[in-house]
Formats: sequence, structure tokens, C-alpha cells
Amino acid sequence: MSSVGTPDPNSGWLSDEELAETRRRLPLLYVEAVPVRVDGLGRVNEVGMLLRASAEGSITRTLVSGRVMYGETIRDALFRHLEKDLGPMAFPLLPASPVPFQVAEYFPWPGASQFTDHRQHAVSLAYVIPVTGTCEPRQDALELTWMSPKDAASDGIAADMEGGRGALLRAALASVGVLP
Amino acid sequence: MSSVGTPDPNSGWLSDEELAETRRRLPLLYVEAVPVRVDGLGRVNEVGMLLRASAEGSITRTLVSGRVMYGETIRDALFRHLEKDLGPMAFPLLPASPVPFQVAEYFPWPGASQFTDHRQHAVSLAYVIPVTGTCEPRQDALELTWMSPKDAASDGIAADMEGGRGALLRAALASVGVLP
Amino acid sequence: MSSVGTPDPNSGWLSDEELAETRRRLPLLYVEAVPVRVDGLGRVNEVGMLLRASAEGSITRTLVSGRVMYGETIRDALFRHLEKDLGPMAFPLLPASPVPFQVAEYFPWPGASQFTDHRQHAVSLAYVIPVTGTCEPRQDALELTWMSPKDAASDGIAADMEGGRGALLRAALASVGVLP
Amino acid sequence: MSSVGTPDPNSGWLSDEELAETRRRLPLLYVEAVPVRVDGLGRVNEVGMLLRASAEGSITRTLVSGRVMYGETIRDALFRHLEKDLGPMAFPLLPASPVPFQVAEYFPWPGASQFTDHRQHAVSLAYVIPVTGTCEPRQDALELTWMSPKDAASDGIAADMEGGRGALLRAALASVGVLP
Repeated sequence: MSSVGTPDPNSGWLSDEELAETRRRLPLLYVEAVPVRVDGLGRVNEVGMLLRASAEGSITRTLVSGRVMYGETIRDALFRHLEKDLGPMAFPLLPASPVPFQVAEYFPWPGASQFTDHRQHAVSLAYVIPVTGTCEPRQDALELTWMSPKDAASDGIAADMEGGRGALLRAALASVGVLP
Repeated sequence: MSSVGTPDPNSGWLSDEELAETRRRLPLLYVEAVPVRVDGLGRVNEVGMLLRASAEGSITRTLVSGRVMYGETIRDALFRHLEKDLGPMAFPLLPASPVPFQVAEYFPWPGASQFTDHRQHAVSLAYVIPVTGTCEPRQDALELTWMSPKDAASDGIAADMEGGRGALLRAALASVGVLP
Repeated sequence: MSSVGTPDPNSGWLSDEELAETRRRLPLLYVEAVPVRVDGLGRVNEVGMLLRASAEGSITRTLVSGRVMYGETIRDALFRHLEKDLGPMAFPLLPASPVPFQVAEYFPWPGASQFTDHRQHAVSLAYVIPVTGTCEPRQDALELTWMSPKDAASDGIAADMEGGRGALLRAALASVGVLP
Repeated sequence: MSSVGTPDPNSGWLSDEELAETRRRLPLLYVEAVPVRVDGLGRVNEVGMLLRASAEGSITRTLVSGRVMYGETIRDALFRHLEKDLGPMAFPLLPASPVPFQVAEYFPWPGASQFTDHRQHAVSLAYVIPVTGTCEPRQDALELTWMSPKDAASDGIAADMEGGRGALLRAALASVGVLP
């Protein structure tokens, strides 16, 4: 969702030019996911963070994220982006409830929201998703790191995330009762 | 949001032609609101339903609904559409939490979801909104009717609503603990 | 939780007499669960209902339910009652979020709430719980029946449930987007 | 809810002795509220914190909190404790939805949960409550302080709160989209 975070190499039903045009006209719908490991009682004990190299060469941490395409359900979009970012063996457990823990609004200018995205106005439905298999980041992600909820909530991690997503990650932890 | 329900007379940053084109390419983001009256303890005791005449001349019941524009926050969009549909004296109380009670997915074909919209793929964030003032429907709405939660949940009311919104209305009632 | 539904054969840290006394003095804390089957994308496609014979010999439908004991977490209580009612091979997936879809308030008198329990004032945290294994009802449950969300939402099923739990079941379906 | 935070001078339907006995036998049901000020669009811009002097003479910050009595609805309990702690002119707006943003579990021993209460096992339904009037703390509260969400989320404030309630306050801020 950030300018470097989750390029859609396949821009779906829009050419690059059309997508660029649309980005100046409409809010785009995204999904984001915080992958977690849970114990036998459903308690979150680890949080997965993606490491990416940005176009400018810096390293940033990010969440699973991407656009919802025309004709695609939110569940399909979530599953597609989880597979794209975590590999086909991650075995994510999508929640029975389709209500996100948060609706994150990204604007290309500061001040309208906690979140910014210099490319576009995007509205993102954000979910905490337990994964039960083996994660093998693909595409442009360098690595998936698992960390404790406490570490994930730290200021250091927040500083590594683009567009204000540190606040979204903390809200994710709060929604599952593990924010310190 | 229905084909007749909430025309955007002012299509914002898109011409009619551009909007028509975009509708074949991208999911559009909407907000919907179920206006309610609450008692001093916050309990919902009445539900507001809009009556509209459709382009084909039939009468349908509907919810407050409309598009989120480029650069507009969800709260601004909710407020704008509440004012458009209920008048400037409705005094809606927007919730402190921006999380919708439901995310309704409308497709132009049946089967993908409970909800359909023959014009477009729309994703709607739906809220229950207490209103404290006087509602005077404007634009194309004929009337606002207040009814009990029990009446609002009836099969008769659901049958009068377009696009499967009867299910959304029931989910709204369930989210505030008044679905029979 | 109903008078016959979920007897606590082992009343935990209270004798029967003490429990009876406490029931006249304090609201008791319960958990309730609606067991569901989900598909690979997390969508609910079946709902599990327990059949029980009441003390008076009638047959009622009910949910998984039971008290939270002293010193027990809500997750532990949920897991214990799921195992008690569905058997050890049900493999329930407890949600990452500890927030219930509804808080059901049961009073021994009518009118204060949708829900009644002639024995006591009980407050129940209610969850939708996917189960992935084989359910073998134990104890006093005669049978577990799987049905479609549509059938589960019917008036006939609601009429078979004690204490107003038909409304709770419908709220459960609404919370996961499958209430008709 | 803390040992000094919200004494129930009137222990309701239980004598002090009975309450003490019950506290060793059953989880007690509480409600907690984070009072907030919202703007015309429902956005939280201030958070209210109570200052109290503990029995040991130290000053602590706390939330509105108290027990749910036998026969009392959760809404009635919330309203009663808000009035008790904020005075009769606070004019709280109880939410239409009875679902808490978090269920906080307090145990008299560490490790079972983020939250502790040396007196008892308590389960607390926690809400964010906009107040629209004038708050005049009564009883043992020294003062109500309004602060920005950012200040309320700080480590300094968390350190002033008993029983781990700093985490609950942060979860409250996250639930309304204002946790930094």
C-alpha cells in the first residue's frame, strides 16, 4: 500500500496509466493483514512483520497489504495478498467475521488522518490473521520476522514502518488484547 | 447506493462518463447509515427508514447511503450523506469508533454476496447512527418513517428494500442488541 | 445456562447450597458459543445446534454454554465448555480477539432484556467458534445438528430455544455476515 | 475496581462479609468507562482521567469503574458509576451497541492476564463513553483531568495507573482510532 510496500505488478483491470489517473480521482479500497501465531486457546503470542527494501534502497517494515480488485470479494483479496506476501504454505485462517478491527484512511497529504500514502487516497480494511503453516515471503519482501507483541508495539518498530502503520499495528495488538 | 436510491447529483471529482467507466473497473467505496432514536441509556427504540420512488415508479425503502469522495474522510462522508438524506436539523451522533458494524459487498451479479447493485461493485461501510434532532428528508426521498426494531426486522420490510438491504438492516439491529 | 441446559455437575468452588444462595445475590458470569463450520476463506456455511432433553421431558435446542469459574480465564472457560458439550475431538478455533459478538443479559423476570433465565441473573459473553474436528456431544446433550445459516435463523428454530436464545443465535449469524 | 479505586460504599445486596466471602469464590462482574470528549464528527479529542488518593496515601490515576449489581442491566450499571464518578451533570452518551471494546480480566495473582486486582477475580466490560456536560468528580476522586489521546497513551500515565489499566486505556484509544 505504501509507494514501495506492495506494488501490484499485475494492476488487474487497469493499465498503469489508468490506475495513475484513478488514483487522483477516487479513494482506492485496500485490505491489510497483520499475520500472527496463536496458541491452542487462540491467544496471540507472535506477530509477523515483513521487511522490504524500498525503491530508494532503505529497509522498511510493513504489513501484508494490497488492493481489492473489481469483482473480488474482500475475503478473496485478503487470501490473495496473504499468499502473495507469505507464500502458498502459510495457511492463513480468515476470521468468520468480515468486520475489520480498524478502517485505516490514507491520504496523500498530512493531517487528515494518522496515515499517509503519497501516491493516493486509500481506505484500508485491516485484519489480524492467524497463520498456521510455513511463511516464505515472495516477491519484493526480503524476510518475515516473528516477534513478541511487546516488541512489535515498540517505538523502534513503529519508526521503521511507512505511512504511520506503527499506529495500525498497535491497534491490531489492542484488538486481540495483547497491547502492553 | 441502489440504482435509484442515492443518485449523486453532484458526482464530485468525476464526470458522469468517467464515473460510468470507473464503475466497470474498480470497487467503489460507500458508507451506509441506519438512523435510530435512542433512550437516555443508549438503547435503540426506533429505527428510521427512507421511502423513495424508484425510476421505474415503484416505492422502495432504503437506508442513508452514498459514495466516499476523493479526499474525504469516512466521517465527513457519513455526515454529508446524513445531512443530504435527513436534512440539516437531524443532529446525528457519529460514533467514537470508526469500525462499521458490517462491511456490505454489493456485486452487479448474484451469488457472490448477500447484496447486489446492478450498476457496480460497491463496498459499503455500514453504521448505526443515533439522531437527536428533527429529520426532514430532502432530495428524492419521499418520507422518513420511524418504526420499532421488531417491525424493522420483519419480512415485509425486507421485501421492500433493494439489493438485499433487509439483511443489512437486520444485522444493524443485531449489532445494537435489538434484533428479535 | 438454561435451567436444564448446562448443569454444572461439578459446581466448582461452590457447594450447591452456596451456588443457590449466590444466585440470589450476584450476576453470574457465563460464556456461550455458537459452533460453526467454515470454508477455506473463513465463511460460515454450517451452524451447530445442540438438542437436549429438559428435566420436564421436552426437547429443546441450545448453544454451548456454562459458567466462568473463580480463577479461570474466559478462554479457558470457553474451551472447557466446548469440550464438555462437543467432545474432545471437536478442535475449536478460539478467536484471537476476546471481544464477544454480544453480551447477553439473562434475568429471572421478563422485560429487562430479550433474555430470561428463571434460576438467576446471568451475564453471558457470546462467541462464534469455528470447529474443525468431529463433534460428539457428551453429558446430557442428545445430539448435535448441523444446519444452514438460513435454517438456523428460522422462526421454528428460535421457538425451540429456551430463554430467548433464538435472538442470540440470529445475532451470531449477523456478526459473521450470514443472517438472511 | 482497584483496591482503592472504586470502593462500593454501598455494597448493594451483600454485606461486607458476604462480599469478602464471594470474592474468594466467584469472578465478579464490573463495568469500566473511559470518558472522552468528541467533536461534531464523533472524533475523540480529549480523554478524561480520574485522580484518586489511595488508602496508602499515594496518588493514582484511574478510570470510571464499578460492580454490576444483582438485577441491574449493564447500561444501568454504567450510568450509575458514571454519575457516581463524574457527577450528575456529565451527560454521558451510552453507546447504542452493548458490545465492549475490550473484556479485561483481573486476577489476584500475576501472569494470568495483563490485569491484576489483589482483592478478587473480576471481569470487566470496558467502554469508551463520550460525555457532553460538566464533570464534577464526587466521592473519593480528587479531580478529573482532560488530556490529549497522545498524552493519555504515554508511559508516564500508564505508570500512574493501578492493576495494568494503562494497557486498557491504550486499547480504548485504539478502539476509537486515536492511539498514536
